[in-house]
Amino acid sequence: MPEMNTITTETELTVRYAETDAQGIVHHANYLVWFEEGRSDFLRQLGLNYTDFEKAGFYIVVAEATSRYKAPCFYEEKLTIETTLSNLRGKMLKFSYRVLDSERNIRAEGETVHVVIGRDRRPVKLPDNFYEALSGND
Amino acid sequence: MPEMNTITTETELTVRYAETDAQGIVHHANYLVWFEEGRSDFLRQLGLNYTDFEKAGFYIVVAEATSRYKAPCFYEEKLTIETTLSNLRGKMLKFSYRVLDSERNIRAEGETVHVVIGRDRRPVKLPDNFYEALSGND
Amino acid sequence: MPEMNTITTETELTVRYAETDAQGIVHHANYLVWFEEGRSDFLRQLGLNYTDFEKAGFYIVVAEATSRYKAPCFYEEKLTIETTLSNLRGKMLKFSYRVLDSERNIRAEGETVHVVIGRDRRPVKLPDNFYEALSGND
Amino acid sequence: MPEMNTITTETELTVRYAETDAQGIVHHANYLVWFEEGRSDFLRQLGLNYTDFEKAGFYIVVAEATSRYKAPCFYEEKLTIETTLSNLRGKMLKFSYRVLDSERNIRAEGETVHVVIGRDRRPVKLPDNFYEALSGND
Repeated sequence: MPEMNTITTETELTVRYAETDAQGIVHHANYLVWFEEGRSDFLRQLGLNYTDFEKAGFYIVVAEATSRYKAPCFYEEKLTIETTLSNLRGKMLKFSYRVLDSERNIRAEGETVHVVIGRDRRPVKLPDNFYEALSGND
Repeated sequence: MPEMNTITTETELTVRYAETDAQGIVHHANYLVWFEEGRSDFLRQLGLNYTDFEKAGFYIVVAEATSRYKAPCFYEEKLTIETTLSNLRGKMLKFSYRVLDSERNIRAEGETVHVVIGRDRRPVKLPDNFYEALSGND
Repeated sequence: MPEMNTITTETELTVRYAETDAQGIVHHANYLVWFEEGRSDFLRQLGLNYTDFEKAGFYIVVAEATSRYKAPCFYEEKLTIETTLSNLRGKMLKFSYRVLDSERNIRAEGETVHVVIGRDRRPVKLPDNFYEALSGND
Repeated sequence: MPEMNTITTETELTVRYAETDAQGIVHHANYLVWFEEGRSDFLRQLGLNYTDFEKAGFYIVVAEATSRYKAPCFYEEKLTIETTLSNLRGKMLKFSYRVLDSERNIRAEGETVHVVIGRDRRPVKLPDNFYEALSGND
């Protein structure tokens, strides 16, 4: 099996007012939504998209999510979500994320672990073409 | 066709921190979520539930939603959502809502209009048993 | 007082997975969040931003919101939010919105009515420089 | 310093439709909102509430959050959030959570780590009366 090349993509976003809370900063649950956007965009930048996975009968479910908050984010800030596919095995994917401000300071970072399941919600192996696209080996 | 009896139900909720925004008050989009909760609970109090509708192949989609905000709501406040089925015709339902504080002051009010659709996403008539349960005529 | 020029801006967005619900379509409350993004971007395109308002001691609160849903939106669709400042008077602003798909079909439309308040949460008149920037009269 | 007594509280909730996503299950970011509700209710059950903290000039910010998803949750399910204050030191609090269904099966579990800050957003020590109430030593 060829070695995996680590791929990192970047996704821009502007903080929405609805994402803030009464502390005046972005509510911490929204970072998981941003990580998901980073992940969706990662797939799109690789010429895949998650809609393709679902049409092919594969669902990528979240098994675990972690975030560490370094500094708060505020309404209207322009941020970059840096997404790395940090691990890929038959039925498991792991992504790492960093939320960067316009000066490349880290506001937050995290990881998500995913399991690939089929229509019956049981774990399955990703088909080879998805696997190869994700591992950067064409 | 028998006349419809107006049914009103009440649903209690406590404001969540995640529902606030940087103005220190509940973000206005969350009232639509509360109206939906009032509607879900309305059905449950009538011995129906929306899961039953979906299992029977009916989806109640939102065609229109309006809210008028009278006074802000704050984290940890205990509120009552008052839900009234204000109109019911073959393929259309209309609900009205009032968000009341513990002293029965109106914080917000609104309406939603719904269309009943089938699995093919085309409008259908509600079956008689659902219709009768909703209209309060047993 | 000079007549108001109607200003319309456009804001692009891609539907997030977190914005969908169990019907497989975008949950209706999220359209209010998109309208708000359209409004925020409207101000930015005029060289203002809402953060400036708050720093100057003005808060624009939502008094009323309406949306009419024409056709559902799905995960990963690219949409345009068209935002028009449809009315502007001393203490009141009204915006209209259209959610357009890539073929300019209308998926949803709506309006929001806003009141300008000061730090004491009482209605105030917008200062002349904001008023002029918003009315497109420089 | 007296040893800390571990306190666990339970909070009931019913899954909202808005909390589901296109996979037909609860979106994973909402578990952080539920953990927060467990935490808010934990404080209320101890006779404190987070509003009191903020009025006294203390903010409890989230430094880290983790969740592990065991089995999906569905619309209208009745769930219990079990919240335990698992660690409490001068400027740091750690909570653990379990999301249980009506048969006490674990659907998800997680932890959050918090830092206490003052109005200037710098870490501060909790005052003794809050500390004692939280540690269960009166």
